[in-house]
Amino acid sequence: MEASKRIENALKHALRHAQSTDGPPLLQQALSYAVFPGGARVRPRLTVAVAMACGGECPRLTDAAASAIELLHCASLVHDDLPCFDDAGLRRGKPSVHAAFGERIAVLAGDALIVLAFDALARGGSERPERLPGVLGIITAGVGSPHGIVAGQAWESEEHVNLSQYQQSKTGALFAAATMAGAAAADGEPRAWRHLGACLGEAYQVADDLRDVLACAEECGKPVGQDVALDRPSAARELGVQGAVARLRALIEDALATIPACPGREALQTLLIAESKRFLPKDMAQRAA
Amino acid sequence: MEASKRIENALKHALRHAQSTDGPPLLQQALSYAVFPGGARVRPRLTVAVAMACGGECPRLTDAAASAIELLHCASLVHDDLPCFDDAGLRRGKPSVHAAFGERIAVLAGDALIVLAFDALARGGSERPERLPGVLGIITAGVGSPHGIVAGQAWESEEHVNLSQYQQSKTGALFAAATMAGAAAADGEPRAWRHLGACLGEAYQVADDLRDVLACAEECGKPVGQDVALDRPSAARELGVQGAVARLRALIEDALATIPACPGREALQTLLIAESKRFLPKDMAQRAA
Repeated sequence: MEASKRIENALKHALRHAQSTDGPPLLQQALSYAVFPGGARVRPRLTVAVAMACGGECPRLTDAAASAIELLHCASLVHDDLPCFDDAGLRRGKPSVHAAFGERIAVLAGDALIVLAFDALARGGSERPERLPGVLGIITAGVGSPHGIVAGQAWESEEHVNLSQYQQSKTGALFAAATMAGAAAADGEPRAWRHLGACLGEAYQVADDLRDVLACAEECGKPVGQDVALDRPSAARELGVQGAVARLRALIEDALATIPACPGREALQTLLIAESKRFLPKDMAQRAA
Repeated sequence: MEASKRIENALKHALRHAQSTDGPPLLQQALSYAVFPGGARVRPRLTVAVAMACGGECPRLTDAAASAIELLHCASLVHDDLPCFDDAGLRRGKPSVHAAFGERIAVLAGDALIVLAFDALARGGSERPERLPGVLGIITAGVGSPHGIVAGQAWESEEHVNLSQYQQSKTGALFAAATMAGAAAADGEPRAWRHLGACLGEAYQVADDLRDVLACAEECGKPVGQDVALDRPSAARELGVQGAVARLRALIEDALATIPACPGREALQTLLIAESKRFLPKDMAQRAA
């Protein structure tokens, strides 16, 4: 089965276990609303790709790990959009969860999505329980305190920010968890896969910074977007557009070179080259061609 | 080691893994602040007591399950106190987390405590991984959608409330998870332990309703407290004080009778009789004596 299809199926399967005719209707609706339709599913695709490249995959555990990573990503978006953070009214082209369901349900939906991620792992781990503690620990490290995405968000409340920790935690941590969890689900050596995830996470962040500049360039006729408005660190601000494009390429080359020896190394390289092209905004890719 | 000491040690051990010199300081402080000093630790004491009664205990897994249950309880208190819910400025005699650290850090601290609960399970589960999927699944069911404490809280946002589901989810679910997780950590049969947890959860809720009425009677000279003010369902309101005391006794008797056959059944009964006396407000216990 194609990876995208596997991931959507795994997410649907996980969500079904959060739904019941005698559960609270609004919360249950908000959970589906926050997960479907999704974005690019970049992180869970990475988990599946690494697990397949490693060989000894246990499909149920891989799918559970991939869907856990995506559910945690969705939870972070729901909470980041809350009035006390970005106060964002839109997400993925529709009203954000708090705009559609109210702030209370948005807080609870984020909480329930976090719990659901680990519920999926409990189910998917029963076939190969000896691999479960490793996969579980990798994913909690990518999300929690002191170095996961929750910690990354918490840096924005600090007066003195450790910029390197902020950037690594906010984006890199969940990408690193995505590659490492894929390896652990396939009985690979997770630590060997950390650098690949960290590189791709940084590349994704640089591409995101570029999109922030370019989207605004198209819309407002000037290269100023949200990162400038909110005074967030941005590769495009620090390096300029051409510099950021060069950085993005270097990161992807670094990522490709760092793939550990494994049965599916070449196929994974080909896949990641194709995937990384999706990181770049279309018009940038054309200009850079 | 005494159960209380075991639990505090396990919580400290779990918290240490959320702290680092290069992590975000405010979040890290808020995590400790939310967990220490604790309340009565009723739920994790129950987990440890059931695991010991069952016999084949794996102490690391039991401690991890007990601390996971308490961390999830603490997370629910932090989020329940938020301005969009109870907007409570005080908790356990000191400023609530959002009052002390701000709303953003309170949202993130709740999230990080949920993740930390599962992190503790990842560590504690490595010795007996074959028991981990069961323990993990019991705990996610007690917390998430559709029947865990998050769902219980979500019922408060519904126009038409399923009262039985609301009460079972809001308090009973995590008590049932506490007994069942203790059994699963000791390789017992978790389902046989659900009813004990559900009974004790309901008893705890009735005692809480009584405290709400009596505290206000002492303080304001009239039997009206928060449940009346917020129009919450309350056993003391429905049954009257004497009726609620009778209900509490019946529930505890039911709980004691329902303990499954196990090596430590008698010791557990004795322990639960002593514990249940702590449910009752002191002056009520004297009056009822």
